[in-house]
Amino acid sequence: MARDTSKKTILREGARLIHAKGFNKTGLQEILNAAQIPKGSFYFYFKSKDDFGLELVDYYWKFIEAMGEKYLSDSRISPMERLSGFMDAYQVMFENMEMRCGCPIGNLMQEMSDLSEPFREKVGDIYARMHGHIAQMLMEAKDLGELPAGLDPESTSQFILNSWEGAIMHMKLVKNIEPLIIFKNMVFDHILKISQKGTGKRGTSNG
Amino acid sequence: MARDTSKKTILREGARLIHAKGFNKTGLQEILNAAQIPKGSFYFYFKSKDDFGLELVDYYWKFIEAMGEKYLSDSRISPMERLSGFMDAYQVMFENMEMRCGCPIGNLMQEMSDLSEPFREKVGDIYARMHGHIAQMLMEAKDLGELPAGLDPESTSQFILNSWEGAIMHMKLVKNIEPLIIFKNMVFDHILKISQKGTGKRGTSNG
Repeated sequence: MARDTSKKTILREGARLIHAKGFNKTGLQEILNAAQIPKGSFYFYFKSKDDFGLELVDYYWKFIEAMGEKYLSDSRISPMERLSGFMDAYQVMFENMEMRCGCPIGNLMQEMSDLSEPFREKVGDIYARMHGHIAQMLMEAKDLGELPAGLDPESTSQFILNSWEGAIMHMKLVKNIEPLIIFKNMVFDHILKISQKGTGKRGTSNG
Repeated sequence: MARDTSKKTILREGARLIHAKGFNKTGLQEILNAAQIPKGSFYFYFKSKDDFGLELVDYYWKFIEAMGEKYLSDSRISPMERLSGFMDAYQVMFENMEMRCGCPIGNLMQEMSDLSEPFREKVGDIYARMHGHIAQMLMEAKDLGELPAGLDPESTSQFILNSWEGAIMHMKLVKNIEPLIIFKNMVFDHILKISQKGTGKRGTSNG
């Protein structure tokens, strides 16, 4: 296997296992077995499991960034519609994953923030970028006069992202998509006060 | 050491270590060392580390329930003031812990929901009780006509608890209390729309 391919395989298999089981529960040998790569090759690319974990954060970010690009940068539709579509896309993804795994960045934020300072800094950097995606939408909405008075785009986007992460954890707990539906309805109906009509698929609460 | 004391010591030391490091990162031997108890005694009380973990969820719940009782059942003050005081009490606690560890139930919800069905059920039961604490306040507020029209106590309390958990994770990431301040302001100013005047200590955002 070419070296570049080997590294990609380790990252892909590690990303899958760590998303499903967590960083501390996933052994290095397990990743190597899944990737069918000897331990020596692993250390050619990564200094340690922690070093690998830091690259993994970037690997996850590339996926999230691509989702963000797809849903948040289409200037033909309004910023609020884009934000709504972005949330719906993740909802569909989580439904397809049967409400397992959750958000890989949220998981690492919870699991690693007190255990490793390099991890905390790395995840902090990526989380700030995720939050920046939402803040950008809200700033555009504010310029268009679509953001309710008294809402600051910066703190509102932090609140939305944190609440989303909390709803994703609850979804993972109850194995039900309802927490995400409640989250979206509260954000759009009671905070942003924007009708979701025409903003794409929207679930209904069974609660 | 008397048997009853030994069990309490294992739970206390395990609770402290697992709150700080997570369930999977904390080894059984580490707990026994901290408790100064031989492995044989551990298996007198618990069938396995997982079995111990399930009792630990109850151990954490007793603490959370006591906080709830203290802040949520004082009928001399309004339900919204009680909810505000409850949130402030946790904020002070997290500040005293230097924004480390986070919510022990939230941590286990994230870490264990996909790894163990008994854990998922146990944490789900306790999480529903936590959410019940908040729902009770909102139902009382609704009876008093203090809940804004269109807000359902049940789904609103789920949203509040999930958003709180998300804010606590973010606090743990950035080692700053600001996510909790933003959370509380959004909940009270923009969702519940209740002035926090006189509801106890309230931080100010530096963001």
